[in-house]
Order: sequence, then structure tokens, then C-alpha cells
Amino acid sequence: MSQSDHFSTEAQGTPTAPGRYAKIDDIPSVELVPGLGFRPVLGESMLANFVSFAPHTEAPVHTHVEEQIVIVLEGELEFELDGDVRVMRPGDVAVIPPWVPHGARTRDSSCLEVDIFSPPRANLIAQATASAQSGD
Amino acid sequence: MSQSDHFSTEAQGTPTAPGRYAKIDDIPSVELVPGLGFRPVLGESMLANFVSFAPHTEAPVHTHVEEQIVIVLEGELEFELDGDVRVMRPGDVAVIPPWVPHGARTRDSSCLEVDIFSPPRANLIAQATASAQSGD
Repeated sequence: MSQSDHFSTEAQGTPTAPGRYAKIDDIPSVELVPGLGFRPVLGESMLANFVSFAPHTEAPVHTHVEEQIVIVLEGELEFELDGDVRVMRPGDVAVIPPWVPHGARTRDSSCLEVDIFSPPRANLIAQATASAQSGD
Repeated sequence: MSQSDHFSTEAQGTPTAPGRYAKIDDIPSVELVPGLGFRPVLGESMLANFVSFAPHTEAPVHTHVEEQIVIVLEGELEFELDGDVRVMRPGDVAVIPPWVPHGARTRDSSCLEVDIFSPPRANLIAQATASAQSGD
């Protein structure tokens, strides 16, 4: 991989939408479960959902067709990935292919993490669209 | 959106691969430009590239077909998104549709950020595959 390959502007296509900036703190949070706040940012082929867990909050084990990548931003989270339970902290990542069961819970700490879904997770699109329209 | 919709295990498909955990610090870093380190994590439809910028390091403005979401994790970064230059810090996100020109540079601070690409950015796949094979 060369620098010129990576930072090329030679091959050009037509942008499908404008780029945009967002601030996590400006996104309205929806609590699906008490203590569990969702702040989704919608792209075309991805959706990034910033998730805050209060202490002692659980996202039960579940499955879905969308691929998911989890990145812990603050605090710590007890994560379960197809039965493999680990405590995740900033610097830890989980890659969850379609239909792999996973869940998460906090103990005494809070946690901020981001779940990126591709394609965008279907049941978050409406919230993400509403947030984008209420924003700048 | 109900809790039972979001955390369903009823609809079941067949996992296409096992889930896996990764630690950013365990991923070998490749420096494309001095001061600019890439640590990619490959999924199926996404690739998360953890990027470290030393102070006074530039990723020149460029374009590509893959959609990209940028999340700043540490430090600060002067980002340019289709001509709109802003200083991004933790809590800031950029959504970059296909072919939208973008670049970034640090001034006196370092920065750690993550670029998520969908589909996986073609010229990072070989590095990401090699990293995964050298890991656990």
C-alpha cells in the first residue's frame, strides 16, 4: 500500500450526499430500557449508535442480521459474545458477524460505547432520521 | 421501537463467522506516512481502522468509494470535510458519504481516532487480514 494509493483524489465518483459533522452530546438520547440511552448517527450503509449504560444496566443477549462492531469509549462493560464473557474497557473492540448472539451489562461502573451496524440496524433508522432532522 | 423488538432472539439466521474480541494496542501499526499509524480491524461488510496521528502530521485530502464514519477517541484533529474545516475532539463524529473529499491534520496535539469504512476499504484489507492472523 503506498501513500499515493491511499490518499488518491484521481479516481473520482459523484458524492451521493453531503458530508456532515455531528456531536454525540447534541444527539437526543432515547432510553429503551431505564439506564440504557441510544444516540444513533445514520449513514448510508452504516449506522453508529452511541450507547450509554448507567451502572447495573443490561442489554440482554440478542441476535440480528446486521453485522456489528463495538468500541468502548469510557468506563467498562461486561460483554458476552457467543458465550465468551469479558470485561471491555477503552481500547477494546468486539466484531459481531450477523446472527452471533451477544449482550452486555454494567456492574458498578457506567459505560459509553459505540455500536456500528452495517447495514444500518433497521429498528434504529427512524430515531436516527428524526435526530438528524432536529439537528443543525 | 420496543425492547422486545430490539433485543429479540426469535428471528434466527446462521452466523457467517465466529464473533471475536480485539485490543487496539495489540494490533500491529503500519505507518503509511511518518507519524500516521494504521491499526485495522476487519469485519465482513465493515473495516474499523484505528488511526494515530503524532503532532504535526497530515492525512492529505482524498476521496474513495467507501463510505466512512470518523470518531475521535483522544486528542484533537483539524478535519476538512468537503472544504468545511473544524477541530474535532472526543465526542465529535464525521459522516463521509462515498467520494466526498476529506483530509485531516494535527497541530501541536496528537490524536487517536477510528475510521469505519463500509465496504471495507480495499487497500487496508491485506494489512487487516495479516494482523488478524498474527493475533490470538
